[in-house]
Amino acid sequence: MPRVITLTTDFGTSDGYVASMKGVILGINPQAAIVDVTHAIEPQSVHQASFIIHTCWKYFPAGTINVAVVDPGVGSHRKTIILQTPSAFFVAPDNGILSYVLNDLAGPQAKPAHSASGQLSKHPVPEGCQAVSITKEEYWRHPVSATFHGRDIFAPVAAHISLDTPISEFGEKIEGLHSFPVPMPFKDATGHMVGHIIHIDRFGNLITNLRSRDIPPGGAAVEIKNQRIMSTSNFYAQGSGLMAIVGSTDYLELSIRDGSAAAVLGARIGDTVKIVSASGL
Amino acid sequence: MPRVITLTTDFGTSDGYVASMKGVILGINPQAAIVDVTHAIEPQSVHQASFIIHTCWKYFPAGTINVAVVDPGVGSHRKTIILQTPSAFFVAPDNGILSYVLNDLAGPQAKPAHSASGQLSKHPVPEGCQAVSITKEEYWRHPVSATFHGRDIFAPVAAHISLDTPISEFGEKIEGLHSFPVPMPFKDATGHMVGHIIHIDRFGNLITNLRSRDIPPGGAAVEIKNQRIMSTSNFYAQGSGLMAIVGSTDYLELSIRDGSAAAVLGARIGDTVKIVSASGL
Amino acid sequence: MPRVITLTTDFGTSDGYVASMKGVILGINPQAAIVDVTHAIEPQSVHQASFIIHTCWKYFPAGTINVAVVDPGVGSHRKTIILQTPSAFFVAPDNGILSYVLNDLAGPQAKPAHSASGQLSKHPVPEGCQAVSITKEEYWRHPVSATFHGRDIFAPVAAHISLDTPISEFGEKIEGLHSFPVPMPFKDATGHMVGHIIHIDRFGNLITNLRSRDIPPGGAAVEIKNQRIMSTSNFYAQGSGLMAIVGSTDYLELSIRDGSAAAVLGARIGDTVKIVSASGL
Repeated sequence: MPRVITLTTDFGTSDGYVASMKGVILGINPQAAIVDVTHAIEPQSVHQASFIIHTCWKYFPAGTINVAVVDPGVGSHRKTIILQTPSAFFVAPDNGILSYVLNDLAGPQAKPAHSASGQLSKHPVPEGCQAVSITKEEYWRHPVSATFHGRDIFAPVAAHISLDTPISEFGEKIEGLHSFPVPMPFKDATGHMVGHIIHIDRFGNLITNLRSRDIPPGGAAVEIKNQRIMSTSNFYAQGSGLMAIVGSTDYLELSIRDGSAAAVLGARIGDTVKIVSASGL
Repeated sequence: MPRVITLTTDFGTSDGYVASMKGVILGINPQAAIVDVTHAIEPQSVHQASFIIHTCWKYFPAGTINVAVVDPGVGSHRKTIILQTPSAFFVAPDNGILSYVLNDLAGPQAKPAHSASGQLSKHPVPEGCQAVSITKEEYWRHPVSATFHGRDIFAPVAAHISLDTPISEFGEKIEGLHSFPVPMPFKDATGHMVGHIIHIDRFGNLITNLRSRDIPPGGAAVEIKNQRIMSTSNFYAQGSGLMAIVGSTDYLELSIRDGSAAAVLGARIGDTVKIVSASGL
Repeated sequence: MPRVITLTTDFGTSDGYVASMKGVILGINPQAAIVDVTHAIEPQSVHQASFIIHTCWKYFPAGTINVAVVDPGVGSHRKTIILQTPSAFFVAPDNGILSYVLNDLAGPQAKPAHSASGQLSKHPVPEGCQAVSITKEEYWRHPVSATFHGRDIFAPVAAHISLDTPISEFGEKIEGLHSFPVPMPFKDATGHMVGHIIHIDRFGNLITNLRSRDIPPGGAAVEIKNQRIMSTSNFYAQGSGLMAIVGSTDYLELSIRDGSAAAVLGARIGDTVKIVSASGL
């Protein structure tokens, strides 16, 4: 059966960078099924890449190898790592790009953090998972370019994992990965849940870090930028004007039918969004 | 043999939406050959998606499953359907996105319609074809998001079709599909064929709904926006300045060598184009 | 084992053109592994396509078939050709699009040329390679559109090559291919190497035609647009401000950490870049 290798990068699709990675992979495992997640990550935006991977990795078959290359520190002393979870592999620089995935794996006991742009810190490898630092050069493409580890390290390592090489072959076990604090909603002084816009999608939908569990059972109004949306909708065609909807990855989204909520509201990543329970109005 | 599944959406390629669909498909059929038609359909433009699918579906091998997800009504009462033709499958919302395909299948006896932005109406399933309403939830991914049937309904259904599950397994047979009238050229009072620009491609070529059969055997001049092109060309390098050429899908195109006809003429979708036979000049 | 077919075009990804080519390929060889190099070549830019293919073709497995369709002369008398090298195949119009590849194959004895926008001339087929003119119509898709040989000639021919049809089957042997002079650096009157910017990538990195061999062993300063960079860096994170780095395809690049060198310098393709040896300062 072909193994899936996904690619998430900030390389764009107008140069030959992505193709070079695919060529290297197919030279090692001609049966690999390579899937582009996106190559349109804003240059060097480790946060954006981390979020996008988080929204889709769970939909891939068991054993999928997710390669993430947003890597401003390429060539420096930052580590390159493999994280193996019970259902997937991740091959990436150790620069925080797996922060959302680590948060997914940590489960509900993970500590919330309020900072939207926090510092990197060491995060223990989640229970049931293993991680290694990629150091065994025999699996790399040589000569290794100091500016393109995607082609010369990440691609060949991912291809060898897809051929069932155990991750312990690629380097020594490590106990922690660098992670930034995933922005979490919090209760303000008046007891309202306050979240942030963490992503703006192609349609101009504003994805917040508020989740379905943050909406009180009796219903809620949602406030953003001096606008109050009086109730949540179940799907886009149900409403008109500005709507609040729990989207396909369980995040509360603000959306405008047949338009861009981002453009209409002038909203940006980091803007706050507040939930007011229906009973509190 | 791998089966081909094509994807046409308005999801863009900067989010994880398309990747999620591919992950779901490959989890069900790891051998599927997934081909992106485009994800750059203008948000919610069912017409544009319908036209693009029309320009390429016939070039895929027999048995190809074409998934089309431009779906502003997702989560509402609009149906999701499968259309099986003698050579292909289509999995889509029942919102008119298959209008051009239905027109392709209807053959020359199809009634012309002059409206470029017509209303949806019921169209009988073409002879030799079958259609079902997708209702059997056991083939879906659960829980089903109310905002992303692409991932939770269309992708798994397409994957199961690629494993040869008969379409009758997915729901009950239906006799009609919603369709908008495909804009057709017509004869004006002076006997000249009048068409419209129905698509503008990446090069700025203006694709009209006039076809090779609309060009008189003695040759023709073509009029657009107070310009007259005195004869048709056979290929781009044959002419200079503004040219009229029968393009690769049999539509008359207006083109400028090494430039964008759309930009130079300020032309838009819906603009009229008239054919004047050479003898009538 | 699946054979790889790469596609490099100026078709963009919002129309159905690329999908049509893939459909035709998969109809002939359902096992082909199709890889997009890019479809974002600037319309009709044979030079840009030639450079991009050059940056990645060597990373694909032996036997890969590289299809290049930037083809302003489609339908005219320009030839369509196959070039077979010891490790790869190229299927393309004979319009100079393989110039960089021919230069790669010619090795160090190739004559330098100073012109950045030279005329096409006949280039002998490199030693150890063969080329044919594609003339045998039985391998084409019919009817052949005069405006889309990508779908009707290049795609089916590439698919048949991937099924091991020898290239002599597709037409008669030819001895030369059209090529433009690949822009080469030269020594100016004061003995300094002078090169040009030949590509600007997604990050705004300025790729020059100067190579690692052009940098004196004792180190060098690099001059562009009245700025002098006092030494070269080994990787992006090593420097700050404007840097000069030998990039992943051995070309000297000018780069700004977390920014676009192209935007900051207002630099363009064709701008000159000079190397001044450290001892000469």
